[in-house]
Amino acid sequence: MTQKTKRSIQWVATPTKENYVGIHLFGEFWNGKIIEDSKEIEKILVEAAKVSNSTVLKIVVHKFEPQGLTGFVLLAESHISIHTWPEWNLVAVDIFTCGSKAMPQKAFDYLKEVFQPKSFNFKKLNRGKNIV
Amino acid sequence: MTQKTKRSIQWVATPTKENYVGIHLFGEFWNGKIIEDSKEIEKILVEAAKVSNSTVLKIVVHKFEPQGLTGFVLLAESHISIHTWPEWNLVAVDIFTCGSKAMPQKAFDYLKEVFQPKSFNFKKLNRGKNIV
Repeated sequence: MTQKTKRSIQWVATPTKENYVGIHLFGEFWNGKIIEDSKEIEKILVEAAKVSNSTVLKIVVHKFEPQGLTGFVLLAESHISIHTWPEWNLVAVDIFTCGSKAMPQKAFDYLKEVFQPKSFNFKKLNRGKNIV
Repeated sequence: MTQKTKRSIQWVATPTKENYVGIHLFGEFWNGKIIEDSKEIEKILVEAAKVSNSTVLKIVVHKFEPQGLTGFVLLAESHISIHTWPEWNLVAVDIFTCGSKAMPQKAFDYLKEVFQPKSFNFKKLNRGKNIV
């Protein structure tokens, strides 16, 4: 399981001078495209990592019976996950990147473009505020 | 990659009559135990899934060089992730469970007990509010 990959460890600086380890974005996409093809989801995860300037280390896609899917890409900068619920026309994504070079919002925008939701929720959390 | 596993698809009902697909919990554990052993992290992820009444489908653990680790367990109910940054004495976790039977707070409490942080952040998001 061990690979010689360095983790991204720069702090994310903000205009308020508070520092964070990373940024975690969340979205629920309603009534858009539902993609249940594992290979396509893999490609989407790779592209989401790429546009956010992140490094792909491992991808896992799991298909449920009779429908639904979870896709996960482990990044040097943390992770991106996609969970689909075709029965509800819902896709839930989260994008967690650490370091100052990653651009998680670009991954979110890309995923939104792919899934074309008619409505969506969006939430951002700063993770690992420097409280030590 | 396909296994015949049903995804948990009950809505999470709340006292306010709003329904959610799931609950997503986040924590940053500062200055506690840092665990860099892959096998131990696997066991912790399995136990976290168990106490939260969730079903383990797949586990991925990735070790970074020279230190740091990401552990991820794919659940029938969504996922749990652990990211460690030994250089900052920081462990970041997130627990996303869907359905009415999962108890993500129990997984959070268990992880906090395992990592024994001197200080921590906690955040809860309701995911997939029924806006359709």
